[in-house]
Amino acid sequence: MDERLRKQLEFALEIDKEKNIFRQTSLSGHGRKENDAEHAWHMAIMAYLLKEYSNQDVDIAKVMLMCLIHDIVEIDAGDTYAYDEEGKKTQKEREDKAKERIFGMLPDDQKEELMALFEEFEEQKTAEARFARSMDNLQPLILNNSNGGSDWMEHKVTAEQVYGRQKGTEAGSKKLYEFTDMIIRENIEKGSLPEG
Amino acid sequence: MDERLRKQLEFALEIDKEKNIFRQTSLSGHGRKENDAEHAWHMAIMAYLLKEYSNQDVDIAKVMLMCLIHDIVEIDAGDTYAYDEEGKKTQKEREDKAKERIFGMLPDDQKEELMALFEEFEEQKTAEARFARSMDNLQPLILNNSNGGSDWMEHKVTAEQVYGRQKGTEAGSKKLYEFTDMIIRENIEKGSLPEG
Repeated sequence: MDERLRKQLEFALEIDKEKNIFRQTSLSGHGRKENDAEHAWHMAIMAYLLKEYSNQDVDIAKVMLMCLIHDIVEIDAGDTYAYDEEGKKTQKEREDKAKERIFGMLPDDQKEELMALFEEFEEQKTAEARFARSMDNLQPLILNNSNGGSDWMEHKVTAEQVYGRQKGTEAGSKKLYEFTDMIIRENIEKGSLPEG
Repeated sequence: MDERLRKQLEFALEIDKEKNIFRQTSLSGHGRKENDAEHAWHMAIMAYLLKEYSNQDVDIAKVMLMCLIHDIVEIDAGDTYAYDEEGKKTQKEREDKAKERIFGMLPDDQKEELMALFEEFEEQKTAEARFARSMDNLQPLILNNSNGGSDWMEHKVTAEQVYGRQKGTEAGSKKLYEFTDMIIRENIEKGSLPEG
């Protein structure tokens, strides 16, 4: 088998491990926690279906690919929960190392391409990166809301923290942020998300 | 909230159930079985990375979306194992009913679009559908091969059956079929895939 195809298939097998990286979000219906691969799949489909609400026109194929690969680094770096302030201090260092090793398994051109796409997502400077981030926030929100806000309650998250994170949603989609804001208010009212 | 967005978000929540539809393929490293959402995520990334091996030029965004949505019907219809001849007799009827209900949750334009994409995949008449099918075959093959062919052994599958299924891979990619053929031969030699 030629070297290029061998590298591509070894990478394909390596990313199977993303199915074992579990997040802090529960599946709808109070099931088990979801994993990164499931989360990425869900985000990519949502991006396609909700693209009309992006603040700016986006190359939707690029957004979908960004959604699909944005958590691959967590195979080595682990999942860092959105409200884990300690974990976030070392997150970039852990993910940079992972990015080199995992994308480094690919042929050089594809390594460069996927690393650049991952960095574009992290830097949040393009319309595609911002809309992908909106999906990264909205997807767990709808699951958590369907479970009565149980993920927030489990981690004692406050409305202030959620609003802090959801600024990113507004940067990608004002329309979807309106929905997000409504959900946060409803959860405050129900008592599943304490203010302050 | 407007009706269109409400329908889109209800569909987004509904497809969360795909994460509970388990397949007959084990994760690499003899782990648990994988589910449809994980399989679809894996296929979509592989399609993007291996697109240069498609027999014909493809619209890769369309292939990726096809990969992502091709198993949504299994939320109602269940997974039908590739070598389950009894199950395959009722598969189309079960999946047609599911297609109407699940995609029917979307606004009409998106319902039509996703149903058409699903049907295109099923009919295998376009380059995109054939390349997506190659991924549907190749993705479990690399997992199963990494486990020494244990899925084949568990289900007492024969080389003849595998070759029958893998015709679909050749129609999408002669290059990836060469690799597939090599893997099948190796497994025959090792005794994990009996001939005849």
